[in-house]
Amino acid sequence: MKLARLGPAGAEIPVVITPEATYDLRSLTADIDGRFLEGGGVDAARAALETGRLPELPDASTLRIGSPIARPSAIICIGMNYVAHAAESGSAPPEVPIMFLKTPNTIVGPDDDVTIPRGSTRTDWEVELGVVIGSRASYLDSPADSRAHIAGYVVADDVSERDFQLVVSGGQWSKGKSSPGFSPVGPWLVTPDEVDAGALRLRSWVNGEPRQDSTTADLIFDVDFLIWHLSQYLTLEPGDLVLTGTPEGVALSGRFPYLRDGDVVELEIEGLGRQRQRFVAYQPRTSERLLEHEGEDAR
Amino acid sequence: MKLARLGPAGAEIPVVITPEATYDLRSLTADIDGRFLEGGGVDAARAALETGRLPELPDASTLRIGSPIARPSAIICIGMNYVAHAAESGSAPPEVPIMFLKTPNTIVGPDDDVTIPRGSTRTDWEVELGVVIGSRASYLDSPADSRAHIAGYVVADDVSERDFQLVVSGGQWSKGKSSPGFSPVGPWLVTPDEVDAGALRLRSWVNGEPRQDSTTADLIFDVDFLIWHLSQYLTLEPGDLVLTGTPEGVALSGRFPYLRDGDVVELEIEGLGRQRQRFVAYQPRTSERLLEHEGEDAR
Repeated sequence: MKLARLGPAGAEIPVVITPEATYDLRSLTADIDGRFLEGGGVDAARAALETGRLPELPDASTLRIGSPIARPSAIICIGMNYVAHAAESGSAPPEVPIMFLKTPNTIVGPDDDVTIPRGSTRTDWEVELGVVIGSRASYLDSPADSRAHIAGYVVADDVSERDFQLVVSGGQWSKGKSSPGFSPVGPWLVTPDEVDAGALRLRSWVNGEPRQDSTTADLIFDVDFLIWHLSQYLTLEPGDLVLTGTPEGVALSGRFPYLRDGDVVELEIEGLGRQRQRFVAYQPRTSERLLEHEGEDAR
Repeated sequence: MKLARLGPAGAEIPVVITPEATYDLRSLTADIDGRFLEGGGVDAARAALETGRLPELPDASTLRIGSPIARPSAIICIGMNYVAHAAESGSAPPEVPIMFLKTPNTIVGPDDDVTIPRGSTRTDWEVELGVVIGSRASYLDSPADSRAHIAGYVVADDVSERDFQLVVSGGQWSKGKSSPGFSPVGPWLVTPDEVDAGALRLRSWVNGEPRQDSTTADLIFDVDFLIWHLSQYLTLEPGDLVLTGTPEGVALSGRFPYLRDGDVVELEIEGLGRQRQRFVAYQPRTSERLLEHEGEDAR
């Protein structure tokens, strides 16, 4: 089953998407969030769909696509989880999962414009398999227990600013991962019965030219291992998003230019849909423009 | 003014605390969270208090003290922000603020027991000045603009597991900062008119023996600079918590033992109150005890 959230940012309508139509979930829930997922919302939606109790959402195709999940309590990321990407970043493959966090307010829809941050010259793309947590996970006994805590999978772009992440950071990456709009997610939340998370092709393009093209079969630490591992160090909450790492083919490799105003990034994971973001230059606010004029007067 | 949240975890009552009494804020707000702070809640509470419109909360002294703020959207931490602590950690003072994140579900009350995580041998304390954000802050023009975005200050213990942070981490610290209960906050949120955040003595003790004893005057990057700096890289949301770093005197220095079952940590910041946490060993669940027995059977 594919769940989505359609409509203006902050006022998205929860829906189920089938090949035939888009169905309005508001009779079941106000949002697709941790409470919905933890409370058996996916099963309830499936049952309501199968018994024809969900109304179609009119004009769904005209609506903006939001992130398929509401703002989570945490976005937990795994770094260097593909051998070739670790190599292109100048690192050896890690012996344990490397965990860092993005602020949850970075989440946006899959096709929203992304602003290149003020002062950025090294904004980069990262297609990633995202795992949405369905129920609280703490101290799981084994990787085999992870599946029971997974609500589904999403495409995510773990947008990164490499100077913020690596140069003015003192070595901690979050500063280059948390700029506004840096986590496009979606288009859909796809339930685990529809995909094999261990064998999904994932690709990205910039202005139509190929960049990344790999498979989640190449993950150093697979999804089940990651959820189990993370649960030893923190409590995963329902609705949380785990990003599993990006494969080779990003600008950090030196093989491609960083993103500039007007560039279009597309990302696709087999079975999980496709994103398309336009990257746009930061627009100074009035106060900043006035400061610039003061500078001119002083010269 | 001092704001607090009293009562069982998850059902705290928002209050104002004065030298005379504890006043119930529920006629103004259900909680002390981003919405309350952003919507002028502090001013409204002050006005209601001054005009005698707040009822006293009976038996307040018998209630558990919760974190004075509800779970934030982010806990943003600054590392190595005191010269002597950087030295005891084996690092040079940073040239830019080092930012990392804790998951927001680590927040607990100032006197709640803290569980030493499963497998931990290096659980450590860190007294820190915490800054609570009062209104959204993005791309501030200068450090002087930070004050308008600060709701108040809190004591926080940035509890850390050093193996999780430094040994099995690949260098990213969040894994050792996010175990359950690792962010005791409170007892109060103190508004900026009551304290000079740039000159507060901060201290910690373990089992009554002194550990840390410094002043926020020694911060490498002060509060106003930090809020301005962070706002260049991410959007600070109302209700968010910024932890400004810890001074020297933690176990990581090698001068003191790490925390063990039954140890009592106390932390105090001048004008912001005092915390007292008992650290307790992880208690295996039934499933884990059964696994252990299976292991015995196999031997």
